[in-house]
Amino acid sequence: MFGPQVAVGQTQDTGLLLEAFDVQLFRQSSETTVAKLGKHLADLSIRGLNLTEPSVLTRAARALMTREKEHIAGYDEEKLAAIIDLYVSTGIQVHSPGYMGRQFSGTVPLAGVIDFVSSVVNQPSSFYEAGQLPNVVERIMADELNQFIGWDPDRFSMITTSGGSLANLTAILAARNDRLPGFWLEGGAAYRGRALPAIAVGDDVHYSVSRTAGITGIGEHQIVRLPLNRRQQIDTARVAPVLDTAERRGLKVFCLVASAGTTSVGAFDPIDDLAGLAAERGIWLHVDGAHGASLLVSDKLRRRLRGIEKADSLTWDAHKMMFTPAPCTLLFYRDKEKGLNAFKQRASYVFDEDPDVFTALDSGGKTIECTKRPMIMPLWALWAMYGRALFAEKIEYLCALARSAHRMLLAEPDFETAHYPESNILCFRYRPGELSREETHRLQVAVRDRVKHRGNFFISKVDIDGVAALRVVLMNHLITHEHFRMLLTEIRTVGRDVYQRAVKGQG
Amino acid sequence: MFGPQVAVGQTQDTGLLLEAFDVQLFRQSSETTVAKLGKHLADLSIRGLNLTEPSVLTRAARALMTREKEHIAGYDEEKLAAIIDLYVSTGIQVHSPGYMGRQFSGTVPLAGVIDFVSSVVNQPSSFYEAGQLPNVVERIMADELNQFIGWDPDRFSMITTSGGSLANLTAILAARNDRLPGFWLEGGAAYRGRALPAIAVGDDVHYSVSRTAGITGIGEHQIVRLPLNRRQQIDTARVAPVLDTAERRGLKVFCLVASAGTTSVGAFDPIDDLAGLAAERGIWLHVDGAHGASLLVSDKLRRRLRGIEKADSLTWDAHKMMFTPAPCTLLFYRDKEKGLNAFKQRASYVFDEDPDVFTALDSGGKTIECTKRPMIMPLWALWAMYGRALFAEKIEYLCALARSAHRMLLAEPDFETAHYPESNILCFRYRPGELSREETHRLQVAVRDRVKHRGNFFISKVDIDGVAALRVVLMNHLITHEHFRMLLTEIRTVGRDVYQRAVKGQG
Repeated sequence: MFGPQVAVGQTQDTGLLLEAFDVQLFRQSSETTVAKLGKHLADLSIRGLNLTEPSVLTRAARALMTREKEHIAGYDEEKLAAIIDLYVSTGIQVHSPGYMGRQFSGTVPLAGVIDFVSSVVNQPSSFYEAGQLPNVVERIMADELNQFIGWDPDRFSMITTSGGSLANLTAILAARNDRLPGFWLEGGAAYRGRALPAIAVGDDVHYSVSRTAGITGIGEHQIVRLPLNRRQQIDTARVAPVLDTAERRGLKVFCLVASAGTTSVGAFDPIDDLAGLAAERGIWLHVDGAHGASLLVSDKLRRRLRGIEKADSLTWDAHKMMFTPAPCTLLFYRDKEKGLNAFKQRASYVFDEDPDVFTALDSGGKTIECTKRPMIMPLWALWAMYGRALFAEKIEYLCALARSAHRMLLAEPDFETAHYPESNILCFRYRPGELSREETHRLQVAVRDRVKHRGNFFISKVDIDGVAALRVVLMNHLITHEHFRMLLTEIRTVGRDVYQRAVKGQG
Repeated sequence: MFGPQVAVGQTQDTGLLLEAFDVQLFRQSSETTVAKLGKHLADLSIRGLNLTEPSVLTRAARALMTREKEHIAGYDEEKLAAIIDLYVSTGIQVHSPGYMGRQFSGTVPLAGVIDFVSSVVNQPSSFYEAGQLPNVVERIMADELNQFIGWDPDRFSMITTSGGSLANLTAILAARNDRLPGFWLEGGAAYRGRALPAIAVGDDVHYSVSRTAGITGIGEHQIVRLPLNRRQQIDTARVAPVLDTAERRGLKVFCLVASAGTTSVGAFDPIDDLAGLAAERGIWLHVDGAHGASLLVSDKLRRRLRGIEKADSLTWDAHKMMFTPAPCTLLFYRDKEKGLNAFKQRASYVFDEDPDVFTALDSGGKTIECTKRPMIMPLWALWAMYGRALFAEKIEYLCALARSAHRMLLAEPDFETAHYPESNILCFRYRPGELSREETHRLQVAVRDRVKHRGNFFISKVDIDGVAALRVVLMNHLITHEHFRMLLTEIRTVGRDVYQRAVKGQG
């Protein structure tokens, strides 16, 4: 290493570049930010969304921008403070107990801190030499988590990728290229006149899965939808008949996708049974565990994914139930060789000619991304600091809370439950009186919108069997039974009004 | 909003959860982190890579992990400090003038600070209601940057996505679905017996582009490679004949991809000429400007992308030449309606039934990602604070530096240049004497490896016309002419030795 004195060079920059890279200003702006984030995290008030008109927010954002003609721009501490305030106050309030609406989590603060390091040191993790520690801990976390999956430690593999949708796409590409080896080079046209390749999915599968058929040249018409049972799981007994019918229609299912659990209600498809059916027919079994794979780390809840060791691939979003910043998705393959099939190509400037001990860890050929954020770092840091106990404790609490909320609903005559919660997602309907299906649907949509606009709680909605239901996703361990009771009060407050006027047409 | 006193509930957590979410510990760990990052940013020493054996690094990382059986884990300040030290010291040193190897940038520190906010508040930006400010500023930045592209402000659109590879895939899906409307639903099989859909690319196109043919069911065999001229650009005069030949072979090119500039040497394809050819034949013109689109913000350099207003889509990585944390990729469409074609699907729980002023800003239907990092925030914050001058100044300096380094090489008899640098990428070869093509190739590979292992500088290599070349990418404005001279000295030091022994077989 040369001494730092040599670095004092003749850079051409004006004050602007010097200022933007000034270390003292970095420290100052970081302190401002930490103070504001600390205050935000300490605010345990119950609140939903501060929904603002886009045009109003656009004006506020524009007002914070330096106008080019005006004067030379520069660092402005007050402007930074205003930007952070606007950013924090208008966002989804994941750290508040009023936030019960989506699968995004209030990140463990330490995960955010480690992510901050990533943002500054900017090590992309697709290649070992660019981000050595991220590549090494990716292997470590793969081994740690595979303990709960149960695959052969020498044969399985794991990659990180930017979100569950991308992981599902990648897994289905690996499946397609494994089972339909001509597809990569020749394209889908090669399959004309033969049985058309098809993908079987649960009727409630995430939209990212069904659209892989459109993306990959399989064709969305070649999605075979498997009917659900009353628990909103794939109905095992009806799978074989549906696959047989598809075959008679000229389709050949090469991949079956199970959910663990579903996005809408958190239902876990019966992986063990489906694995048996898939194996009999030579079908690749992919499990979309974006939401629910994290239950594997809990001794109490692991059985929801019984049979996972028989699957071929598994999507696991750490940014959901492992509480890290998004995205941090893990894609596991039972057989690493098959994982290499997703993208078959080489490029001289990124893949070195002679693999060595360093390039063996490169993942650029196994993921969509070329430049990839070292997203494993926050997860590993939490795991290193707190072990799996942190995750297991929080997940067990949230799932128990969903069950207790379900019991509460059973005792309330003006509410109906839509399912028994298998995880931390609970869907239900407000039905204060006799209502048709259509009226019930409209009431839930109106209630959800009003609750959102009032800003005390944030919940979502989902259609179940064609009728809207209210949906809570319990991602915050600060939410208690009591908060859920307050939510029901809120729903009744807005719901009675809607029910009287709009649904029963009092006006 | 309810008062905070209500939030004091009966959570079931043990000390572990309380500790992990403790605000005081968040402040403390942030301070430790800011101090370490500040020290890292202040270190201007010239250094390359501290390349470590993966097995050694694995042991070091494992040593920092709490063993489950041992005792209850907990927050440990010393462990955090050790994690950050290990992370920072083993990474690619993007903030050092010794880093000249890749297109990752030393981020502007303020961009990292804003990204930190994103990591903690965790607002996904696919849906307006979840991340209001990111969605609004995405529109603002689209308008700001479109000033330099020149599309109809009412017709164009822009989305953010996780990396240039994903943006290229998304654009090509939009092109495929626009020009081959049966593909999404019916799949590639529908095109058997007709002309096979094909994609034309420059022979030096990024691997992410050519592999889209494999991903999307077009088939990699249906990639038509366009020959390059001596400047490593697509040779306009030879495009029409190659397309005609392809047509006679039964191919129908529906999309042509130009690079601005290429990954290997930073060459800009002649967009203006190609747009004319594409228009004549009804071909979608996509420009992969992952690296070079940022030159648009410079009045001096914009002409490299002459004709960009005639393209149909453009990939632009802000995490390269706009110096933000990765990933932050912008994908522009000239016609927003066509951008909606990339993924045709709806899902009730994410896309609301009746679009309103809020959901009109949702981008979930237009990107691969469902949960998407609010990656626009760091870029917007820099733009708001410093205006475009910051970017233009830095980019102009880096491109001028590449030209000056090129001039330096012309005066050195033991070096040969491989091209005239159109941007901040410069490729050249060390040739201290008469060498065959094969010897020249081996020498560059050996020099690159030795330079990397010595750890004073970090450079890359690339094959040009089948022979390896040394490649520098100048991403740091602290690099001067003098540093480049030091690099040449380093290359000579290791190169003479390699030349004597390995190439000329003295041993």
